[in-house]
Amino acid sequence: MLRNNLQSIIDLKTKPPGSLGLLEKIALQIGLIQKTNKPKLKKPTIIVFAGDHGIAKEGVSNYPQEVTYQMVLNFLNGGAAINIFSKENRINLKIVDAGVNFDFKKNNKLIISKIGNGTNNFLNEKAMTKVQYELCMKKGGDIVEKIYNSGCNVIGFGEMGIGNTSSATMIMSNLCNIPIEKCTGRGTGLNKIKLKRKIEILKKAQAFHGKKNDPALILRIYGGFEIAQMCGAMLSAYEKNMLILIDGFIASSAFLVAYKIKSGIIGNALFCHQSDENGHKTLLKFLKAEPILKLNMRLGEGTGCALAYPIIKNAVAFLNDMASFESARVSNKK
Amino acid sequence: MLRNNLQSIIDLKTKPPGSLGLLEKIALQIGLIQKTNKPKLKKPTIIVFAGDHGIAKEGVSNYPQEVTYQMVLNFLNGGAAINIFSKENRINLKIVDAGVNFDFKKNNKLIISKIGNGTNNFLNEKAMTKVQYELCMKKGGDIVEKIYNSGCNVIGFGEMGIGNTSSATMIMSNLCNIPIEKCTGRGTGLNKIKLKRKIEILKKAQAFHGKKNDPALILRIYGGFEIAQMCGAMLSAYEKNMLILIDGFIASSAFLVAYKIKSGIIGNALFCHQSDENGHKTLLKFLKAEPILKLNMRLGEGTGCALAYPIIKNAVAFLNDMASFESARVSNKK
Repeated sequence: MLRNNLQSIIDLKTKPPGSLGLLEKIALQIGLIQKTNKPKLKKPTIIVFAGDHGIAKEGVSNYPQEVTYQMVLNFLNGGAAINIFSKENRINLKIVDAGVNFDFKKNNKLIISKIGNGTNNFLNEKAMTKVQYELCMKKGGDIVEKIYNSGCNVIGFGEMGIGNTSSATMIMSNLCNIPIEKCTGRGTGLNKIKLKRKIEILKKAQAFHGKKNDPALILRIYGGFEIAQMCGAMLSAYEKNMLILIDGFIASSAFLVAYKIKSGIIGNALFCHQSDENGHKTLLKFLKAEPILKLNMRLGEGTGCALAYPIIKNAVAFLNDMASFESARVSNKK
Repeated sequence: MLRNNLQSIIDLKTKPPGSLGLLEKIALQIGLIQKTNKPKLKKPTIIVFAGDHGIAKEGVSNYPQEVTYQMVLNFLNGGAAINIFSKENRINLKIVDAGVNFDFKKNNKLIISKIGNGTNNFLNEKAMTKVQYELCMKKGGDIVEKIYNSGCNVIGFGEMGIGNTSSATMIMSNLCNIPIEKCTGRGTGLNKIKLKRKIEILKKAQAFHGKKNDPALILRIYGGFEIAQMCGAMLSAYEKNMLILIDGFIASSAFLVAYKIKSGIIGNALFCHQSDENGHKTLLKFLKAEPILKLNMRLGEGTGCALAYPIIKNAVAFLNDMASFESARVSNKK
């Protein structure tokens, strides 16, 4: 049986059993996904989905909406954190306009997958139509398919969208059945008063739409074109049996929807970091996920994936390349 | 003032202030060490010091003493975890025979810095003589000096030595004034009965030598040629204003002695991970250190340094290369 075989290979490496901690679990998981004791990570890629949110006009963020498109331009120019970390860790980076409120000039670094110029304000209507939702799921999947066909088998997801911690909060609150106060946080850095206001607005929205159970409907109501495309992309990556790297709070909310649609996806997922955003710790607990990094970050963009990637790579490398007690002629336990 | 200047550069990068968490602190610290807002990490190097311990014959480890020399051979052949991680993360690796109970054949990958074929058994005598202690401090320093002269400015320390969690426990217990039970742990994986026995032996040794305060004397009594050479090496790295990477429990015990001798060294140190070994969390707390990684590892060899290094490198990269709100024309907070 592959699991026992992998575990025994890991245990017989020249180290006390279990002494590589989480790296041993990661190596085992990747071996199981790829169904081999010699797994390989090929063409690691991070996709950053960007989109605007109708709810942003309610003042739920510290930053104005135009920051979404300005940050996309920053990604295209190589100046954002995710650019730096992807480059340092040799990860391919793709930027997707999933629905930013801006018309970008043609740029071959930008994947156009636009659904509209931002979602509706979910305070008093559904963030997106059924057609828009379905387009998101399909287009997200298509992007992954193309990347997969180029030879990639490990893919991370990040996002940019002013207001999107509000969407993520609503998705989490509904799907985990946890009150809004415990799901939401300061996002880009709200003060206490603004946070209180954000909670009030989100509660109003919840009262308006009522409690829901259907993951697809919840995603439609509280939206985020970037969140929905991420969700479609994750499901497509799972279908292709890729290793899926999950970033922070918003990416995890997209994953939560994907998980509610196809629970098996969790076997292909690595949770790259625990964000400082209030709800993320609780969400990871709900998913029984063990995050790789805890660096008190709260930036998004896939930065957690990029920073965790070297550790994942090292886990695969030890499984492939470390000597065993026998091959190195090291005495095992007394 | 450099600190304010660095902080303001970090705050004006295109991200919410503080959102890169620990990476922001690391970038600030390295800028302060190198006295520049454009720090550089040059020729990263990890030195693994190996040595044998008289106390090993009391059965304080799960593994026989010959594993020390066998693992050194494994290091030289490239088969150990630290080989894999150093290679993956492009870190130079040096192996030092600080006092292993074995006569190695000439090998240009091995630095001979041998003080003897293992220390005395500290159960009933001092682990090393005053002359041996002084030799350790000097030889450890000389090794770092040579590496520094080759252009390296960031150096990590790891170790190998069957029995050396016992030495580290005694050093910590004496210098932190914390009872042995709270400092010691299962090392390579002792069961409950063996752990109880280890604690009894270490208590006996403490009763024999009496409580001490002098860090140099404590290091002499409880020894470890590899621990003492690491301590000398760290002090030398501090003198040269290098960035110092601290690994797990044993490396931290060497650092503790260095810190008690020259407290300023802590400004140059990064604590790469929190080991699963029982005493390490408490020791890091004592040092008010914030570990970069928490991966439930307990292997030593400098593996924590090697795995944390990419994160440190990414921290320096964001400080140097990320765009500012102004340069990227991104709107700052409302």
